[in-house]
Amino acid sequence: MTQPLRIALAGLGTVGSGVIRLLNENGAMIAQRAGRPISVVAVSARNRNADRGVDISPYKWVDNMADFGADSEVDCVVELIGGADGPALDLARNSLQHRKSVVTANKAMIAHHGMELAKIAENENVALKYEAAVAGGIPVIKGLRDGASANRVERVYGILNGTCNYILATMEKHGSAFDAVLKDAQDLGYAEADPSFDIDGVDAAHKLAILAALSFGTAVDFGNVEIAGIRHVLAADISQAKALGYRIRLLGMARIDGDRLFQRVNPYLVPESHPLAHIEGSTNAVVAEGNFSGRLMFQGAGAGDGPTASAVVADLIDIARGDCGTVFAVPADQMEKSECAESGNRTGKSYIRFIVADKPGVLAEITAAMRDANVSIESLIQTEKTDEGLVLISMVTHQSRERDVVQSLEKLSGSSSLQAEPMVMHLLSDED
Amino acid sequence: MTQPLRIALAGLGTVGSGVIRLLNENGAMIAQRAGRPISVVAVSARNRNADRGVDISPYKWVDNMADFGADSEVDCVVELIGGADGPALDLARNSLQHRKSVVTANKAMIAHHGMELAKIAENENVALKYEAAVAGGIPVIKGLRDGASANRVERVYGILNGTCNYILATMEKHGSAFDAVLKDAQDLGYAEADPSFDIDGVDAAHKLAILAALSFGTAVDFGNVEIAGIRHVLAADISQAKALGYRIRLLGMARIDGDRLFQRVNPYLVPESHPLAHIEGSTNAVVAEGNFSGRLMFQGAGAGDGPTASAVVADLIDIARGDCGTVFAVPADQMEKSECAESGNRTGKSYIRFIVADKPGVLAEITAAMRDANVSIESLIQTEKTDEGLVLISMVTHQSRERDVVQSLEKLSGSSSLQAEPMVMHLLSDED
Repeated sequence: MTQPLRIALAGLGTVGSGVIRLLNENGAMIAQRAGRPISVVAVSARNRNADRGVDISPYKWVDNMADFGADSEVDCVVELIGGADGPALDLARNSLQHRKSVVTANKAMIAHHGMELAKIAENENVALKYEAAVAGGIPVIKGLRDGASANRVERVYGILNGTCNYILATMEKHGSAFDAVLKDAQDLGYAEADPSFDIDGVDAAHKLAILAALSFGTAVDFGNVEIAGIRHVLAADISQAKALGYRIRLLGMARIDGDRLFQRVNPYLVPESHPLAHIEGSTNAVVAEGNFSGRLMFQGAGAGDGPTASAVVADLIDIARGDCGTVFAVPADQMEKSECAESGNRTGKSYIRFIVADKPGVLAEITAAMRDANVSIESLIQTEKTDEGLVLISMVTHQSRERDVVQSLEKLSGSSSLQAEPMVMHLLSDED
Repeated sequence: MTQPLRIALAGLGTVGSGVIRLLNENGAMIAQRAGRPISVVAVSARNRNADRGVDISPYKWVDNMADFGADSEVDCVVELIGGADGPALDLARNSLQHRKSVVTANKAMIAHHGMELAKIAENENVALKYEAAVAGGIPVIKGLRDGASANRVERVYGILNGTCNYILATMEKHGSAFDAVLKDAQDLGYAEADPSFDIDGVDAAHKLAILAALSFGTAVDFGNVEIAGIRHVLAADISQAKALGYRIRLLGMARIDGDRLFQRVNPYLVPESHPLAHIEGSTNAVVAEGNFSGRLMFQGAGAGDGPTASAVVADLIDIARGDCGTVFAVPADQMEKSECAESGNRTGKSYIRFIVADKPGVLAEITAAMRDANVSIESLIQTEKTDEGLVLISMVTHQSRERDVVQSLEKLSGSSSLQAEPMVMHLLSDED
């Protein structure tokens, strides 16, 4: 096994360049750990002449990356171009069909087409690895697939989007408004020019669907993730939550109840005693609760070229060592789609915030609606006008069925007392 | 590969019984994940008739566990009897020599004899796995060996002993004295009747030596771990540290500087902004800093039958899947013993606490000794008599060479102003 593992790199953005830099810098050590060298033999990207800070002249340049699949000098294709479909998917499918292992950082592709690709990989007896697709540099795919493998995991959840966590933690620290912090984050490069993919929760949902499949042995089911983002979180929500002993974090939460799968991305109120409450900045963290291990948490950088390259190359080392096991924890053809658990049946405490008109009777109207829907209120605060010029009523309910909370809000729908859609966030508990 | 992996269990204490319980409870799922069933075929322990809460009648009972090595019906021996030498070591050595894979939870044996055993395993091309030996249920061995494999790790450290963390966190919470908390911990079963192995840092040092070898590719070197425990930590130290923005935690800390290895177990002052400051109760956490991944942290239950069984069985699943790679991250015969880095050359901030006589001139004497040794003081507090009836002087130094701190204390040695040995703890920083 002293033949090098020959890889082709498709995509030379920051992550692709990071992989080259990593292999250059740590190459000797990696060869020792992998039992053989890992060598880039060919590269491809949209623009051959972009300045990448790494020298790509030693590698064969390929104009059409689709050619990697049939290239007999390539053992493994590293897909770093992104996008759920299109060239990335064509390349992955074609490479696997040509019995080449594939390593990818592409969460959208795995969330949408992971089952199809996994079946091809397992039929062809090659590897499909995607450590970098979830939580950047944190080895959580291996942690769940191999580290927690003895456990029935019933709940997996975490902070899966660094941009959102940065924004929420910064709003919390400075009491600033969402729009201002988002703008700063864009200026600093922590958020994209078009940030909707991150802040509306889609990115976290891709990752969550992958984690759920890996943890529960069910088919990847991105289509059934309930998704809400952080756009409507107010600074006042954060300070209100803080006064109650909670921090607001965007969580991806997946749970299996019998054969019903529940998946949700939503801002949650996380109790200060929970380790996720202390995850600051753009850090990511994933919690898995196993029936023997208890609560495991994996934490680290969720993005960035260095951490992502670290995850890509760890997958390459696995492949060089000969690990071509199942793509998820169990063979793909044994992974079945679960029924979707109805969120209305779930019970828990909720935080509900109303932006209300400054007039008499509003509180009576809201509390009557809650009562009529059987939602009992644990605590309630009506605040004076906020910095944003709004009058807010925030409450935390007692344990309630989510269906009842929704119904109480339906009763209020269209009321002239409300100046915006109410905001509902769930309180993270051991029961979620 | 549908032949079961046939295992023999040596030792049926809480962990051994936990392994049986886990395999009974999660067996079908494990067979799916491992690609084949994992079956206990034989067991052995000191007392055949102890009440263990699990039925051992389905398994062959073997009086002399040393016979497992030569048993042709056994593929893999699980050693759960403990002790660095004696029967555990004989069993592990003998089993590997008979080309049986070995899974162990025995940190003392790996810390003392890991290199010898790893060489036998690699020569015979069988697995030697020890996930359960470090940090209980947290998959940190796999996390470092496989997850962080692309990185040059220059520092690995963490909270490696749950008993100590429970005691320190409880002292912090209630302001209670070490002896009282230890006694409660013993009554609750969180500390052993003879707790010295835990509270004096030896247990953490075993784990640290293993983590260092795995992270740096150097030979396991338990003999060169500097060890101090938590016996002399006062409630006043904890409140003093807290006032300065720190929590006291017993850390194992290993660092490689060029080819010099530094390993220390010591109570540290951990800044509140560091994730380790928030590790409460008997939880363990390990931080690894990779040159591409950045800071990774793995956290979970560091002990207990369920978490430890989870780690043991994860190793068995690896073996059933056919992963018989190197024992550490690199082949054992390439792991060389590093020079030991002299701690005197290290620089950092230290917390020094004196118990002093209540008489004039003491402060002048201490500060003069510091000045003469070139140790500059950043902050200093002399407290009134504590609950324990002591007068304390606590200080934090500016960045100083550890050698100079030691020298300053030597100058004070034998002084009638001091009523006990001074206590030195280092401040955790990014430079440690």
